[in-house]
Parts: sequence; C-alpha cells; structure tokens
Amino acid sequence: MKKLQRAVYNLIREDDENGLAAAVFDGVIITLIIINVALVILDTFSGFPQPVLAVFRYVEIGSVIIFTAEYLLRLWTAPLKFPDSRPLRAGFQYARSFMAIVDLLAILPFYLPFIFPIDLRVLRMIRLLRLLRLLKMNRYTTALSTIAGVFRRKAAQLLSSMFIVALLMVVSSVLMYTVENPVQPTVFRNAFSGLWWAVATLTTVGYGDIYPVTAAGRVISAVIALLGIGLVAVPTGIISAGFVENIEENNTADRGDYCPHCGKKL
Amino acid sequence: MKKLQRAVYNLIREDDENGLAAAVFDGVIITLIIINVALVILDTFSGFPQPVLAVFRYVEIGSVIIFTAEYLLRLWTAPLKFPDSRPLRAGFQYARSFMAIVDLLAILPFYLPFIFPIDLRVLRMIRLLRLLRLLKMNRYTTALSTIAGVFRRKAAQLLSSMFIVALLMVVSSVLMYTVENPVQPTVFRNAFSGLWWAVATLTTVGYGDIYPVTAAGRVISAVIALLGIGLVAVPTGIISAGFVENIEENNTADRGDYCPHCGKKL
Amino acid sequence: MKKLQRAVYNLIREDDENGLAAAVFDGVIITLIIINVALVILDTFSGFPQPVLAVFRYVEIGSVIIFTAEYLLRLWTAPLKFPDSRPLRAGFQYARSFMAIVDLLAILPFYLPFIFPIDLRVLRMIRLLRLLRLLKMNRYTTALSTIAGVFRRKAAQLLSSMFIVALLMVVSSVLMYTVENPVQPTVFRNAFSGLWWAVATLTTVGYGDIYPVTAAGRVISAVIALLGIGLVAVPTGIISAGFVENIEENNTADRGDYCPHCGKKL
Amino acid sequence: MKKLQRAVYNLIREDDENGLAAAVFDGVIITLIIINVALVILDTFSGFPQPVLAVFRYVEIGSVIIFTAEYLLRLWTAPLKFPDSRPLRAGFQYARSFMAIVDLLAILPFYLPFIFPIDLRVLRMIRLLRLLRLLKMNRYTTALSTIAGVFRRKAAQLLSSMFIVALLMVVSSVLMYTVENPVQPTVFRNAFSGLWWAVATLTTVGYGDIYPVTAAGRVISAVIALLGIGLVAVPTGIISAGFVENIEENNTADRGDYCPHCGKKL
Repeated sequence: MKKLQRAVYNLIREDDENGLAAAVFDGVIITLIIINVALVILDTFSGFPQPVLAVFRYVEIGSVIIFTAEYLLRLWTAPLKFPDSRPLRAGFQYARSFMAIVDLLAILPFYLPFIFPIDLRVLRMIRLLRLLRLLKMNRYTTALSTIAGVFRRKAAQLLSSMFIVALLMVVSSVLMYTVENPVQPTVFRNAFSGLWWAVATLTTVGYGDIYPVTAAGRVISAVIALLGIGLVAVPTGIISAGFVENIEENNTADRGDYCPHCGKKL
Repeated sequence: MKKLQRAVYNLIREDDENGLAAAVFDGVIITLIIINVALVILDTFSGFPQPVLAVFRYVEIGSVIIFTAEYLLRLWTAPLKFPDSRPLRAGFQYARSFMAIVDLLAILPFYLPFIFPIDLRVLRMIRLLRLLRLLKMNRYTTALSTIAGVFRRKAAQLLSSMFIVALLMVVSSVLMYTVENPVQPTVFRNAFSGLWWAVATLTTVGYGDIYPVTAAGRVISAVIALLGIGLVAVPTGIISAGFVENIEENNTADRGDYCPHCGKKL
Repeated sequence: MKKLQRAVYNLIREDDENGLAAAVFDGVIITLIIINVALVILDTFSGFPQPVLAVFRYVEIGSVIIFTAEYLLRLWTAPLKFPDSRPLRAGFQYARSFMAIVDLLAILPFYLPFIFPIDLRVLRMIRLLRLLRLLKMNRYTTALSTIAGVFRRKAAQLLSSMFIVALLMVVSSVLMYTVENPVQPTVFRNAFSGLWWAVATLTTVGYGDIYPVTAAGRVISAVIALLGIGLVAVPTGIISAGFVENIEENNTADRGDYCPHCGKKL
Repeated sequence: MKKLQRAVYNLIREDDENGLAAAVFDGVIITLIIINVALVILDTFSGFPQPVLAVFRYVEIGSVIIFTAEYLLRLWTAPLKFPDSRPLRAGFQYARSFMAIVDLLAILPFYLPFIFPIDLRVLRMIRLLRLLRLLKMNRYTTALSTIAGVFRRKAAQLLSSMFIVALLMVVSSVLMYTVENPVQPTVFRNAFSGLWWAVATLTTVGYGDIYPVTAAGRVISAVIALLGIGLVAVPTGIISAGFVENIEENNTADRGDYCPHCGKKL
C-alpha cells in the first residue's frame, strides 16, 4: 500500500521532473485541459448535429472523471507531499492550497446538477479555471516567478499609479458627462457612460461608440488621452526598473565588489 | 483648553499614525469622501424617486457639516502643527497649504447659494476635489513620492518631448486640414478639427469619428501614427531611466560607504 | 575554372564588403527585390492597360531568371564558402541554410505552372519572401543581431507573459460571449467573436466593429482594457531590461580586465 | 559701426543668456512666432468679417518685416559669430546653417507673390517652420540634446526595428488584400488599402474605417495587432536602455573606479 502510494505520488507530483511516466501523465492532463477549453469554446457555436454534441458530452464526462480521480489521488498522497504533518492534517493542508481549490472548483460544477437543478451553461465555463493548471508547466515556472516577483516588489508603486488613474477617471467622467450630456443626451446618459468613455480613452482603445463632439469635451478628451500616455509610461517604467533591479542584484551577487583601499572583497 | 486642543490635534494630524482613535477618524473621513463621490456620480442618473433624492441631500448636508468642522478644527490646531509661528500666523500658514485650499474649495460651493443664487449642479462637482485627500493615505505616500520624484527629476526631458509633440500636432493638423478639407469639408472643418484628429492619432486612441480618406492624408496619417509610437516610447524611456537611476542611488546609499576591512570611505 | 569560381564567389559572397563590383552586384539585387515587391503591390490594382501588364510580366520573368542564376552560382561556389566540406556536401550545406531555402521558395513558384496548372496570383505573393534578403544588408546586421539576441535571451519571460495573455483572452472571450450574446446575438455570435473582441481590446486597437453594450460587458471590457496596459508594460519592461543587461555586459567587457597600474586582472 | 554691430550681436546671439535686452528681444520673437502660428490656424476658419481679416494681414506683414530684419541683422553680425572666418565667408557660413535656412524658408514665401503669381494659402503654411525656432529656447536645450543624443546613439537599432516593421507591413498588407478583397471589394480595394489597414493596426490606432470580416483576415489581424505590441515594446526598450546608458556614463565619470589590487584609480 505504502509502495503504491509512493509510486502514485511520483507520478503526479508537480515539484520536479521525474521520469517518462510522469511526463506522459503531465502530457495527458495538459491535453485534456486543452480539449476541455476547446469544448467550452465550441459550446458557444450553434448548429452542431446531435451526435457531435453527444461526443462533446462523453468527452466532458470522461475528463471530469479523470480530473476527479487525479484530485482524490493528490489528496491521498498528500502525506508524502507534507511529510512533517500527520496524514489527515496533510490532506487538509493540500486541500487548502491554491491549486487544489482551483482543481476542486473546476470539477465541482459537474456534480452540482445531480444534487439540485441548475443552469449548466454558466457552470461549464468554470471549467476554464483548469487553464490555471497550465501555469505550472515546469518550463516557464522560473520566468513566471521572476515576472511575479517584479510585480510583488513594485506592488506599492503600481497600485499608487493605478490609484491616480482611478481618481483621474472618476473626475474626468463626471466632467465629461456635464459637458457632453446637454448635446448628446443619449450617448453620455450618466456618469457611468462617462466612465466607459474614460476607460476607452485612457487605455487608448477608442472603440468609437462614445466620443465628445463639443469643443470643451474635445479639449478634456485631448488632455485625458495625453495623460493616457502616462498610464502606459509610468507602469512600464516601474516594471522596467524592476526587471533591471533584478538583473543587477544577480550581477552584484556574481561579481563581488572590492575596496579601493585595501583591495579586499566587500 | 490647551489639553483639548492637543487631543483634537492628535486625532486629526496627518503626519503619522497615532493610535486607534485617529485611525477611526481617518476611516470615517475616507468613507465620507467615497460616499460623496458616489453621490456626485448618482446625481447624474435620472429617475430616482423623491425620497431617495432627499436622503442624498441629507447625506450631502451632513458631510459638508463634518468637513467644515474638520476644517475649522485644523485651523484651530494649526499652532500645534507650526509650533514656531505665532498662533494667528500659524492659522494663515495652514490655510495657505495645498490641502487646506483643496478642503476649502470642496466645502465652499455648498455655502455659496446661501449668499447669491447659483446653479448647484456644477458646484457639486467641485466636491470631487475631496478625492485629492485620499492621496494622503499613509500606505501609498512613499510610493507616490517616489513616482513624483522621478517626474520632478525628469521634468525638463519630459516637457521637451511634450513640446516636440505639440509642434508636431500643430504642423500636422494644419497640413491635414489643407489636404482633407476639399474632400471632407464637414469633417475637417478647420485646423481645430485637424488638432482633434492629431490628438486621436498620436495617442493611438483612434475613435474613428475623423480620419483621412485621400491618399495624401493617409500618408500623413501613417507618418503621424508611426511618430505616435515615439510619443509612447520616449516618455516611457525617460521614466524608466528615472526609476532605474532612483534604484541605483538607493543601492549606492545602502551598500554602505565604508570598507568593512580597513574602515576607509569608499 | 577555379579562378572564375573564386571571382564569382568574391562577387556574391555575403559575409563582408569586398570592392566596388560586389557593392554594385548587391545594389542590383536589392533594386530588383524592391521592383518585384512594387510589382506584387501594383498587381493588386486593376485598370492597367495591357501593354503595361506585359512590361510587368517581362520584368518578373527577367528577375526570376537573374535570381535563379544567382541561386545556382551560390550553389556552385558553395565549396568556397564551406572550405572544410567536400564539394557536393558543401552544396547541400548551402542549400539547407535558411537564406537558401528562402531564395528557393521565392523562385520556385515561377516554375511550378510549367509543370502543373495552378493559380498564379497567390504564388506571386510568395515572391515577397525575397524581402527577407534585405535583412542581410551589412549596415544593420549588428543592430538586428543585438535585437534578436535580446529576444532570444528573454524568450522564456516573453513567452510566459504571452501565455498569460492567451489565458486571459480565452477566459474573457467566453465570459464576454456569455454576457453580450443575449443582447447582441449578431455581433457576439460565438466565442470566436469574443476572441476577436479580446484581441482588439487587449492590444488597444479598438476598431469599433465589436464592443460591449451591457453594463456587465462594459465592466469586463474595462478590466481587460486596463490589463491590456500590462500587455504593453510587461514585454516592454522585459525587453528594456534585456537591452540594459546587454549594455552592461559590453561595458564590463570594454572597460578592460586589467589594472593599468599593477597589471593584475580585476 | 563696429560698436553697433557688437551691440546688435549681443542682442540677437543665441548661444547664451546676455542681459535683459536680449531676453526681451527673445520674448518678442517668441510672441511673434506664436501669434503667426495662431494666424495660420485662424486662417483655416471661415466667417471672419473683412476688418478682422485685414488685421490678420497687417500682423502678418509686420511679422515678416521683423523676421526679415532679424535675418539680415544675423547675416550682418555673422563675422562676430565666426571670428575666425573672413567677413563674407562668415556670412555664407551663417546662411548655410540649419536655423538660417529654416528662417529663410519661413520668410521667402511672403516675397514670392511679388515676383510671380502663386497660391498664397499653401505658402502661408510654410510659416509654421518658424516653430522650429522655439526649439532653441535656452531652457530645454540640454534636455533636447540628451534626447537627440539617445536617438543618435541608438539610430542603427531603431532603424533596424523600423525596417522589420516595414517588411511586416508590406507582407501583411498584400496578404490582407488577398484574403479580404473578395468579400469587401470596396474596402480592401488594393494593396494600398491593405497598407492603410496595416498602419492603423500595427500602431494600434484602429480608426475603424477598415477592418477584416473574414475568419482568415481576423486571424492575420490578431497576429499583426499582437506584433504591434512589439512595435511599441522594442523601440521603447531600445530608448530606455539608451537613457539608462546615458545616466550610467555620467555616474561612471562622476565616481571613478578603483583597482581591487593596488587601490589606484583606473
């Protein structure tokens, strides 16, 4: 039993690469995830004949069974993942982890209709959560954690700049509503229309469904659009500096520094 | 009296964190500001029944009274904030500060109609100024001042690049007007239409309400749109370099200025 | 024979600059490439009289003959390019190189119709591949390889961020479809419409042919548009850091590795 | 005479700040330039009454006379600007300088109609060239030359990336034409329409006057729009690195480097 548990754990553990069997298992799970995402997308198309829809359903049921089995096996082998905890506690520890919650949320919707009737369509979308699993693919883990590290380190600065953007949006949306509402009452209906315009302008998306026509409105819009450049420039500058800082720390660690007087390493 | 003044000052002072009472006071003020902003936005919606509008008005009156009281208390405790000045002079000193002016501008509009009749609607918008208060929330002060520092340090370079953009806009708007006016006289009505087009193109917003249709106009537009890339790239580069410079100065300051072996300054 | 081969090789070799004749040869080839690209573009215009179209065809035939001759000459002089290989093997070695394959693909379409009937129009477009040749112009080779080097070095980080963008697009497109389809069934027809919207929004292109009209859709759109800022900021930050890293390495290499006073390695 | 020439030269010289009189002279010239630009813009508005138009004309004539006098005075004082040259040669030397040519081009159009009849309207636009004069305002000269220096230093890399963008535009425009022309023959009329679309998409302007409707066209568009991110990211990265390099060189110059072995300055 212990041996089986160990073998299963080696197959499904995520922390490092362990042989061909584990790689095949990973490949199967990734393929299943991609197939499920494709199904969610295909579900939005109408016009599939009944037999095709039946195949879609079988694939979905099959995937959920495999994902459920995988979840239960991970729960079962949790004591090997957290060797310092007592078995039951290890199970809880695993179930509380971010990825375990994601996995549970991704399979639960399938079982809910058995308990009480519910609209399947929205629930099926929750399967997309499975995509988060792909983030754990070994190849990109380091790069992702570097990016995440830069964001974490610069969180305060990024949030501050976002905060100023939010202020700017609120003020300009109310201003724009006041200026444009008398001329285009159906377009700038209320301050929310103004917010929608502010988002489209500051992010430079500019769909073209809402824009000022008065001279005052255009002046405000020009100011906001130019400030929108800052919306790109400031976070980009912060993130660039974060990446540069990252590299320099690695360099400093690599090369060492020397005292100009005694020549010893600092 | 002195003791009460000191207690009030400790409650409302902004320069550091001082106990639970002050935190609660801060929380109340921030909540009031957010409620007032929500009211300004809700005011733009029509269709609220009379009783709801009455509630809006009561909340507004209540807030203004609290904000007025806060302003007066800050004025009263100014001598504790500026201990080196004489009491009256300290009051003036406070009243002249940026935040005090903002606070005054945010409450004044409410009292104006009592003196002479005026359209309330625009005046209410001025309450949005209160939002500036949120910038003082302790948590982000450091990050904001870092960002502001980068802007201040790079002000000349940023202004120079904005100046070139302004030149570019003026020239291209007149050029575009000359080229497109004969074909689209109602769209490119004058050089101001050209400026509006130049802003939308250089910032890459591109609402789609105004764009060239002639071959010459499209060539100019392509050139301006490509130069618009520079409008993002140059300030971003300047700001990035500013943040990197900032980090490097901190590093130099942090690393210590003395050799740990010989004790001499590096 | 050997001497002729050597002379031809010196004329057409790409690795360095070698005299006037080679420069003239380069100029002729580049001119021919540009003329051919112009022809591909002019082919899309209708209304040319028959004689002009005949000239186009003669120029095309002439170019293909020259490009074919060039390809064969390169094949013939391959032993001089790869002096360590045996003559036949050198030919294969050349034919397998990226530029040789590009060259072959660019001339082959011309000969195919002689063998079996085929639509010429699409095939002619393949001549655009010739443009890749221009990348070898000596002047910019160093700069291009620096840029390519930054991309190669940061590939994992760039791919990781693209991967997160892809996840975001899939999730938001399905979400948007679900929210907007009931209101705009002809615009958000299926999840592919959603993907088209997600691309236009995340890249901030915003053509204006597809955008949300419901409140929920607009909130999602605002979130995606703001995350689109990150789509620009993160790769830009990564690439900036890559270029800075590049410069710093060059500096370290340039500064010299030896002390001018004591001669020891630093 | 010499003394007068010296006094005039001190008044109009541009290389440094020299007293109140010169500052006033500068202010007058800048004001005149701005008034002239305003006139060019106002000329595009119709509906001004005759007397106002007459005033416009008088102001224009007055400015041109002043600018002409300034030009002649600069020519006259050229021997003081280039003390090492012989008087006549110094005049030529000045006339050949970039700013002198700009000044001449800006005043010449006014005199042309006296010689042969010509459409005034387009010629008046050339007065906008005067705006280039503003670039010499002492305050921003350093910042502008820093920015220009970064561009000069990174010219090869920036041109290389622009070159790749140009290739991309040509290929995608022909591709898009081929895919979309059969479905939207009036929108994608020829490869030039495709180029216009490629510019609007790659720069993320997205006016919305031209966009693909076929599945294949949308896939190409998505690819081009995502590559458009690179169009922003790569030059921004290059320019950021240029500014960082600039700062680091200044730092290196400031602090000096020391040998770890002998402690002497390198």
